[in-house]
Amino acid sequence: MPDATVPTGPTPRTALGRNRERGSYERADVDAILDAALVCHVATQVDAGTVALPMAFARAGDEVFIHGSPAAGMLRALRGGAPACLTATIVDGLVLSRSGFHHSLNYRCAVLFGVFTEVVSPAAKLAATNAIVDHAVPGRSAECRAATDRELRATLVLSLRIHEASAKVRTGGPNEEPEDLATPYWGGHLPLALQASGPPVPDTAHAPTCEVPTSVRSWAGPAPVPMPSP
Amino acid sequence: MPDATVPTGPTPRTALGRNRERGSYERADVDAILDAALVCHVATQVDAGTVALPMAFARAGDEVFIHGSPAAGMLRALRGGAPACLTATIVDGLVLSRSGFHHSLNYRCAVLFGVFTEVVSPAAKLAATNAIVDHAVPGRSAECRAATDRELRATLVLSLRIHEASAKVRTGGPNEEPEDLATPYWGGHLPLALQASGPPVPDTAHAPTCEVPTSVRSWAGPAPVPMPSP
Repeated sequence: MPDATVPTGPTPRTALGRNRERGSYERADVDAILDAALVCHVATQVDAGTVALPMAFARAGDEVFIHGSPAAGMLRALRGGAPACLTATIVDGLVLSRSGFHHSLNYRCAVLFGVFTEVVSPAAKLAATNAIVDHAVPGRSAECRAATDRELRATLVLSLRIHEASAKVRTGGPNEEPEDLATPYWGGHLPLALQASGPPVPDTAHAPTCEVPTSVRSWAGPAPVPMPSP
Repeated sequence: MPDATVPTGPTPRTALGRNRERGSYERADVDAILDAALVCHVATQVDAGTVALPMAFARAGDEVFIHGSPAAGMLRALRGGAPACLTATIVDGLVLSRSGFHHSLNYRCAVLFGVFTEVVSPAAKLAATNAIVDHAVPGRSAECRAATDRELRATLVLSLRIHEASAKVRTGGPNEEPEDLATPYWGGHLPLALQASGPPVPDTAHAPTCEVPTSVRSWAGPAPVPMPSP
């Protein structure tokens, strides 16, 4: 599978412009960001123009999977072969400089380009939809009822092969102008993360009859998904 | 300013497809999401195709401001009038159903369409760049050195007027199939939020000579930015 080692360098779409020292075309760097981001944004052209929408997703091996209703407008365009951009962004912190100009964010961002293909076989669709569940909550697909044939038929699953991608990462403290160091202003950074902001809330409409599983109680963010069996 | 009350209804680009009950075309709903999101994703067409990138931003009144280097490829396309989509997404939680099929996310998402215009006057650029700083850290622009004329000249500021937009929100617990309620699986949701994940980290290259300001120490997310003086 020679594709597994690409991207090896920039293409016209992935070539990094500003702040190239923050960028990478290494597959491991791209994968690590995809695996750590809870949602991505997918952009494409629909009849009415450019649109970008948030989506749940998962990477498994060389593929990134998204899913949804076959009736959804963007998914229909993607299924039809519309070129797409998939962007996964993780905000890691606020960068506070002594100057407004050098304020920034710490972040990790992976940008993929390509054309999605439809996942057709029921077994592959089940593996992909389980991967999306497990990406958000590691281990969760084993703790809920598996999709039925009817549900799989009602779900459009699309795959984007990772073959044209770049990563960009900013970490650490602020850049400063030398003349600003004598100002009376504080400089530094504040780490941020998407975290549980309260305890798990049991379904109020239908009270669960079991304890909150560890996968939910100890949720600490997305994790890599094991590659589904072929 | 008649624009201030739009959008009043769907356009071909903003018409909600799936799960319309989660959607809104109300300006107050759109504004509230823009004001609560730390970053947005901006998508447009560049020479190489569709691209979507994360950006800091701020809303002030009827405008959304972004900024960056005049040399940045996407900003150059936007400055040149390329139609854009600006999407602000806040992930509010994981929705855990008894079935894999009904797993979901709680989220708030605002999607804007339009063409950016360049902010030209130094005073308006200063107000916009301060708004972006204050959106991320309320009050911060008063706690750092203001931008110089040289810095403002080196910054491209673009404005998108809010005139074609929609909002979509999902809250609460899972949907369930009646036959799944007897399964031994837990159902509910886990609230998530982007939060400080550690204490503020003082600049290690140039140790601050003052205490961490309250704006940073007590950071609790973005806040609406007062409308800049005309």
